[in-house]
Amino acid sequence: MTRDAVVFYSKFDDPVAWRNALQAELPDLKFCVAPDIDDSVAVRHALVWKPPTGFFSAFPNLALVINLGAGVDSLVARDDLPDVPISRLSDDGMVSLMTSYVLFAVIRYARDIPAFERAQRRREWHYIHPRALSGIKVGVLGLGELGSAAAAALAQVGLNVTGWARTEKTIPGVRCVAGRATLDSVIAQSEILVILLPLTPDTRGLIGARELALLPRGAKLINAARGAIVDEPALIAALRSGHIAEATLDAFMIEPLPPEHPLWTFDNVLITPHLASITVPEQAARDVAESIRRVRAGQPPLHAVNRSRGY
Amino acid sequence: MTRDAVVFYSKFDDPVAWRNALQAELPDLKFCVAPDIDDSVAVRHALVWKPPTGFFSAFPNLALVINLGAGVDSLVARDDLPDVPISRLSDDGMVSLMTSYVLFAVIRYARDIPAFERAQRRREWHYIHPRALSGIKVGVLGLGELGSAAAAALAQVGLNVTGWARTEKTIPGVRCVAGRATLDSVIAQSEILVILLPLTPDTRGLIGARELALLPRGAKLINAARGAIVDEPALIAALRSGHIAEATLDAFMIEPLPPEHPLWTFDNVLITPHLASITVPEQAARDVAESIRRVRAGQPPLHAVNRSRGY
Repeated sequence: MTRDAVVFYSKFDDPVAWRNALQAELPDLKFCVAPDIDDSVAVRHALVWKPPTGFFSAFPNLALVINLGAGVDSLVARDDLPDVPISRLSDDGMVSLMTSYVLFAVIRYARDIPAFERAQRRREWHYIHPRALSGIKVGVLGLGELGSAAAAALAQVGLNVTGWARTEKTIPGVRCVAGRATLDSVIAQSEILVILLPLTPDTRGLIGARELALLPRGAKLINAARGAIVDEPALIAALRSGHIAEATLDAFMIEPLPPEHPLWTFDNVLITPHLASITVPEQAARDVAESIRRVRAGQPPLHAVNRSRGY
Repeated sequence: MTRDAVVFYSKFDDPVAWRNALQAELPDLKFCVAPDIDDSVAVRHALVWKPPTGFFSAFPNLALVINLGAGVDSLVARDDLPDVPISRLSDDGMVSLMTSYVLFAVIRYARDIPAFERAQRRREWHYIHPRALSGIKVGVLGLGELGSAAAAALAQVGLNVTGWARTEKTIPGVRCVAGRATLDSVIAQSEILVILLPLTPDTRGLIGARELALLPRGAKLINAARGAIVDEPALIAALRSGHIAEATLDAFMIEPLPPEHPLWTFDNVLITPHLASITVPEQAARDVAESIRRVRAGQPPLHAVNRSRGY
């Protein structure tokens, strides 16, 4: 077996945790952390999150690029990407974290929690008779591995869930509809709308002023995907007017969200710092190792990205 | 068929919704709302929530008392209760609401949401790397119909769940332990402790200063059952000292919680006005009708209460 190497680059992920997790799977793999590379010719695999421009050109024998996350929008948009297979992460840990985040954010609205938070500040026992969950309409945009699992979990709680995707899907308990032509009707009937789409040229700005206006008055929006899918100024206007009553946002046009950004101050917005779903090395390393094994054997990696589709 | 009658009494539940839901199931049943009773001799069934003292003595032919809720503590503690079967409500709607409440409250802590709420007030992008859900230990005290469903749902999200009950239970994905002797060890290992016990002489004050001190430092407490199960002054002291980092409380010693009560002002307490689980007439009426049918036929009702056990 060739002693090939993987190069690691990320400002967010822990190289030590990744080295340990990956070497437990592939003891013969050399693990090097950019910029400390002693043998760039041996590097056949890159495990990266937003490496600098020109990064890949240092490795003439690169055979696989693995994106340290589910969303590959920043990777496939580059013009310095080598012509090798690209794989993205999608492990059980990520799915489980995203599902938990979406359950939390949706149930918070379904159970009127923001009204109780406000009543508590007034020291007021403000009873609101709960609605049956089966009568609360939730729309989930995006039914990839994360979206499908989240939609299924919401349905299992008893909510009335409609899922929308580019192509046909089947998810237990979820009414699934497909294609751009059906998007408006899904938005128009969603009291709570959850965005779990990949960011692609098709989805950039997909939820603009027109789409926000289609939501029922008083709707709640949850964006756990990418900031650029939603027209942020239009969202702010809809939150100000009250057409959108509440929002939970994990992703923004600019991250970290700057301290002067108006979204921080909205009483009806909950902001989390882009961590709805993250990669857990101990769980993801199994898939990464399997992709490396497959590429060594001349096969395509797991979770291969279609560059033209963008995910 | 005798044209028997049911008498309805509640200050919280809607008699019109109950009349409609119940008459859809049992068109031959007379439905009367206290105190408007034209024929008290015909009343064979009582559908009640905290009726006044002496209420039952007006109905000489009473054959069934149905408690308008899951917790029968206020009913079985009375000394004016007739010697007829008592049934409590436990329908899918209640189970679904309680499960949703517990999922919300537990995931809120598992995903560090209170820290993000505080950071938002400082306009601060305060990243906390998420922990794998499988490493977060949740204890559920009480594995009745509500507790079992909530524990199973928490396990399905991927949390590490231990359930505790008086008697042995089996719940998929949940480590179940039974009996008073094991309670301390369950408390001592629970980062997040959920109380879903019935209020009985055995559980009144069960979670006192000693038990709260057994929790790991920084633990989170969720009480969606009855206020009197927890020693409220001891809880307040533990919240002040920081030994308990956060609490979500739906039930209190005195309800409605008075405006001057100190719990309102805790930044680390979320208060909801006793609605984690409520009865939805459209869903519960099916069980109520079935209990009436069974009592008419000389059989025990559904969800029969054992008076000496207290639930």
